[in-house]
Amino acid sequence: MRAWRFAGGFGRDNLVLEPDETPEPGPRDVLLEMRAAALNWRDLVVMRGEHRRSVRPPLIPLSDGVGIVIAKGEQVEGLGLGDRVCPAFYQHWQGGPPPPDLGRGRLGGPLDGVLATHRVFPADAVVRVPDHLSDPQAATLPCAGITAWSALSDPAPVRPGEIVLILGSGGVALFAVVLARAAGARVIVTTSSSDRAARLREMGADHVIDRRTVPDWAGADRVLELGGAGTLNDSVRAVRTGGTIILVGNVTGNRADLFLPPVLTRRLTLHSVSCGPVSALRALVRAIDRHRLDPVIGRVFPFRDAPAAFDALERGRIFGKVCVSCQTEGPT
Amino acid sequence: MRAWRFAGGFGRDNLVLEPDETPEPGPRDVLLEMRAAALNWRDLVVMRGEHRRSVRPPLIPLSDGVGIVIAKGEQVEGLGLGDRVCPAFYQHWQGGPPPPDLGRGRLGGPLDGVLATHRVFPADAVVRVPDHLSDPQAATLPCAGITAWSALSDPAPVRPGEIVLILGSGGVALFAVVLARAAGARVIVTTSSSDRAARLREMGADHVIDRRTVPDWAGADRVLELGGAGTLNDSVRAVRTGGTIILVGNVTGNRADLFLPPVLTRRLTLHSVSCGPVSALRALVRAIDRHRLDPVIGRVFPFRDAPAAFDALERGRIFGKVCVSCQTEGPT
Amino acid sequence: MRAWRFAGGFGRDNLVLEPDETPEPGPRDVLLEMRAAALNWRDLVVMRGEHRRSVRPPLIPLSDGVGIVIAKGEQVEGLGLGDRVCPAFYQHWQGGPPPPDLGRGRLGGPLDGVLATHRVFPADAVVRVPDHLSDPQAATLPCAGITAWSALSDPAPVRPGEIVLILGSGGVALFAVVLARAAGARVIVTTSSSDRAARLREMGADHVIDRRTVPDWAGADRVLELGGAGTLNDSVRAVRTGGTIILVGNVTGNRADLFLPPVLTRRLTLHSVSCGPVSALRALVRAIDRHRLDPVIGRVFPFRDAPAAFDALERGRIFGKVCVSCQTEGPT
Amino acid sequence: MRAWRFAGGFGRDNLVLEPDETPEPGPRDVLLEMRAAALNWRDLVVMRGEHRRSVRPPLIPLSDGVGIVIAKGEQVEGLGLGDRVCPAFYQHWQGGPPPPDLGRGRLGGPLDGVLATHRVFPADAVVRVPDHLSDPQAATLPCAGITAWSALSDPAPVRPGEIVLILGSGGVALFAVVLARAAGARVIVTTSSSDRAARLREMGADHVIDRRTVPDWAGADRVLELGGAGTLNDSVRAVRTGGTIILVGNVTGNRADLFLPPVLTRRLTLHSVSCGPVSALRALVRAIDRHRLDPVIGRVFPFRDAPAAFDALERGRIFGKVCVSCQTEGPT
Repeated sequence: MRAWRFAGGFGRDNLVLEPDETPEPGPRDVLLEMRAAALNWRDLVVMRGEHRRSVRPPLIPLSDGVGIVIAKGEQVEGLGLGDRVCPAFYQHWQGGPPPPDLGRGRLGGPLDGVLATHRVFPADAVVRVPDHLSDPQAATLPCAGITAWSALSDPAPVRPGEIVLILGSGGVALFAVVLARAAGARVIVTTSSSDRAARLREMGADHVIDRRTVPDWAGADRVLELGGAGTLNDSVRAVRTGGTIILVGNVTGNRADLFLPPVLTRRLTLHSVSCGPVSALRALVRAIDRHRLDPVIGRVFPFRDAPAAFDALERGRIFGKVCVSCQTEGPT
Repeated sequence: MRAWRFAGGFGRDNLVLEPDETPEPGPRDVLLEMRAAALNWRDLVVMRGEHRRSVRPPLIPLSDGVGIVIAKGEQVEGLGLGDRVCPAFYQHWQGGPPPPDLGRGRLGGPLDGVLATHRVFPADAVVRVPDHLSDPQAATLPCAGITAWSALSDPAPVRPGEIVLILGSGGVALFAVVLARAAGARVIVTTSSSDRAARLREMGADHVIDRRTVPDWAGADRVLELGGAGTLNDSVRAVRTGGTIILVGNVTGNRADLFLPPVLTRRLTLHSVSCGPVSALRALVRAIDRHRLDPVIGRVFPFRDAPAAFDALERGRIFGKVCVSCQTEGPT
Repeated sequence: MRAWRFAGGFGRDNLVLEPDETPEPGPRDVLLEMRAAALNWRDLVVMRGEHRRSVRPPLIPLSDGVGIVIAKGEQVEGLGLGDRVCPAFYQHWQGGPPPPDLGRGRLGGPLDGVLATHRVFPADAVVRVPDHLSDPQAATLPCAGITAWSALSDPAPVRPGEIVLILGSGGVALFAVVLARAAGARVIVTTSSSDRAARLREMGADHVIDRRTVPDWAGADRVLELGGAGTLNDSVRAVRTGGTIILVGNVTGNRADLFLPPVLTRRLTLHSVSCGPVSALRALVRAIDRHRLDPVIGRVFPFRDAPAAFDALERGRIFGKVCVSCQTEGPT
Repeated sequence: MRAWRFAGGFGRDNLVLEPDETPEPGPRDVLLEMRAAALNWRDLVVMRGEHRRSVRPPLIPLSDGVGIVIAKGEQVEGLGLGDRVCPAFYQHWQGGPPPPDLGRGRLGGPLDGVLATHRVFPADAVVRVPDHLSDPQAATLPCAGITAWSALSDPAPVRPGEIVLILGSGGVALFAVVLARAAGARVIVTTSSSDRAARLREMGADHVIDRRTVPDWAGADRVLELGGAGTLNDSVRAVRTGGTIILVGNVTGNRADLFLPPVLTRRLTLHSVSCGPVSALRALVRAIDRHRLDPVIGRVFPFRDAPAAFDALERGRIFGKVCVSCQTEGPT
């Protein structure tokens, strides 16, 4: 096998392609031949070495990927050779309340990620994916897809007719647009680009509004707060009494200057979401399958050019997910 | 005003049209000029005198209707003259847990119903309806519409990708088909008529199956059990481990011979639903408005022929709701 | 009747005792002879004229009170003369999701409050109280009691064995200590006073810790954040992965400098609570009755000295609720 | 090691004690030296060969037990040698929605159970138990304890002040009495024995009533239906509008003649419960630890007399759980 690794340290220059011994699956494991991987904002934070102290090199990066089962342990049931599966972002969280050591089980840091030709995972931490998805599309489910799904499911599911306001048009936002549509919501998205506005409308957004003019009404049942510090008080203004703000990202900064009185008198809930358990991945897969949803892929880089994918995400101009093919031409 | 009443007793022959004084709204009430009413199975049970002892003549029948606000008390806020509204089935249940005296507040028995030219209701027990609905369509929301909505909302909402099995094609079932579609579910309906099968497919059912062959798999996340005694064990067989059976009707009998072992070992929930609170009516209205849903109307009888509407429902061959126009040609 | 009113404007000096005509109950109303009222922090904000613009003089202050039904409208069922009841803080919220115009129905501003000898309320907005409570104790239920109850009930109820961290020992905190005990939780309270520490232990707190040393562990299932801006990041540090911070007050300021990364990676929920619906008041009453809970009363002022009660609350040194008797010696 | 097995077939006479090789833990497994096991009604059904077809000899019986970690695989974190743990009833259900193949992972059939001196389990399917419990007490948690816990937690948790009616005084019922007390409920238990009545009162039941006189009021918020077919309609009568009946057992028969009208008009929920996921076992352990709860042990048989424990449970006269010590005097 071959794998990209932050070897001597973090940073773009420490990301190197190394050969390695192909691992053997344990009795309850599966061995995957990886097909594709997808990048998330978090992967940039890891590359910069700005993630938690427990995330340390050497490390295979990227949490999101898809592969084919090519070997399995003798106790594995319910999965066969040739099945195409995604490993779950949280390898130790099947469902229910999150375990106390949640962070310990994350792919792409502290656990080795998916940017490799072969990887072994516990069989109960992988989920079969719908046939209609391309490999790069399937690769986007474990983190971006699940985050959007959880943002529409927790702490209570969005219902038909509700108003969902989605801030921005990044990877999670695009997933959220189509999933909120599938759930019957009225979908409002913000963007500052007229090109993106047109594409968002094609994807099913009911309204696309300029992100600098988040309206001063209190009407949304749920706001997907994908910006973070810079937009939180706007989100508070935009949500109805008793409504929910889903905290997903902190792209615009780590410290939010939160104005409390409207939060208190209007009985708001701020609920943070990042990926979700294996049970959510199963539910997402069913919804994607039922609605033949197609995650938007911006660009797919070949395996040998994986570092360029990090650059592309960082520049931030791509509409859709940035992916890497894990298939290589040469010998593995 | 004029109203149909079970005057001297119950039964078809005791249903008489009587003139009456038009009531005055109290300080927190609205006076409606009724536009249409819709019949439900429960109204037949009331007509037969088989409902609870507290339901007694004289009684204006029918719980489901729509009217125009033509006068209001001085403390009424948020409603104006000319607003088209539905009174809620449970007049005393705004939301949250049902009150202990739930049954006491039902329209069409024990409280006077809507089969009249004019009626007064508390302003907080009526809800504005979407403009795109005809009067008969709007009239179907308070009981049939809400029951279908609640059947897909409680004890937890149906999610995109879930499988909803709906037994039959009566009034609640037809509502449930379009609402389950709007919520992104995979919808399976049973019927024994090939004509109905075609119409159900047009309405958006993913699969229509013969009602005598409810499959012996355990795959549905939720079964809407609209039959009752006769089909309950079939529903148990059809639902997945951990799934939900919504108990709505008892058309096929009052006593169910329930086989307990699969209920126990497969962790099933049997949840009964009949209409719902005012808050559910508001949520339903939003979903209907968002998706421009059109309740299926089978036939509309003129006000003077209201008794014939009871006959038509009893014969049971009409696809769609049986309604009565409450507008009269002559003086009121 | 007689009532205290902010007559010409807000502020301590504009609070005057005025005679008035005793009101008549409408058809669905009850007339109460008020027995006692209790003060909350919000009442000070109202007195200072710092509440919302919709709260304007002339205004009878105070939301929390208890009275005896001495007359009722002809449509009132389920309540009798002589019943001792509390009016609900939100007069228009029976249960379920909060109505959009929630703020409009609050007692003590914008609606007239309870600091009067007689008041009329809708019958469905009052709740009978347990016999074992004194009048001042009963008066504390509608806002302080319900806020504590909701803080332990929403968005999901506290369970036996969970760890509840309560910041401070104000009115809501003291209620929360005994209610969290009754629910089987492990209760930790912060205070900076050793006198208060002893009393909190007597009330059933498992641990009392110094408020300046909120521990740097992530162990509490739920934190009742009664301080606001000044302590929010401490609360984030103290709560477990997947845990809940209940936002109640903003005593320490309106603008919180919230550090987002731990909120995001640890999947926290920040849920704001202020009082609750009539259904919560009914549930609270049952819990108080079952456990013979005694709300802690700090001091009761006679009706004629009501302004002094505001002073006492403002000085903030009283352990327990500050109340006013509404019974007067002279003619009403 | 040594283990009791249904060897050649089911039935009392086929239960034989056999020596076996002590198993090695896999990389994510722990090896337990078993300390005690506890019997449940289900174990009798298994012994009679009346359980599902998938439950087949040879089989080590009993699902409930406790043991000491004496070896562990190299990937096991968070557990150390010497830890005293219970294996979960459902070995494949960590939390969240139950997996479709739930039944496949049950200890005591189809998976080998705990009536042995040594057993290997996946490390994520065992939970540490409180120190204050004796071995037999700890052994009762995985099925009887969790069933009682889930019966008070699902589909929504019991709250302080609610009325919980518990039918009978078997193993689950006794657990439910103390857990419902800990959650602050008002607890009513039925029994036909005056001896048991006295002991139930000592354990904290607020009311003990004769089981032949389940009252004809509709007042309980929740009924724990531990009888099954014979008492289900009594439970329906005893529960309030909107209340919940928890279906646990079918001791009195498999076919219930359920009268539907009150279920439908009173909006009841019938929710079946049998054990629960690993996350519920963790929550139960915290509650037991917090309240120093002591499961009631009726009798403990020595390992060599395990078959006599089945006889004792079958005769049904023992108050408290029937247990078996798994420690043997001789060499293992």
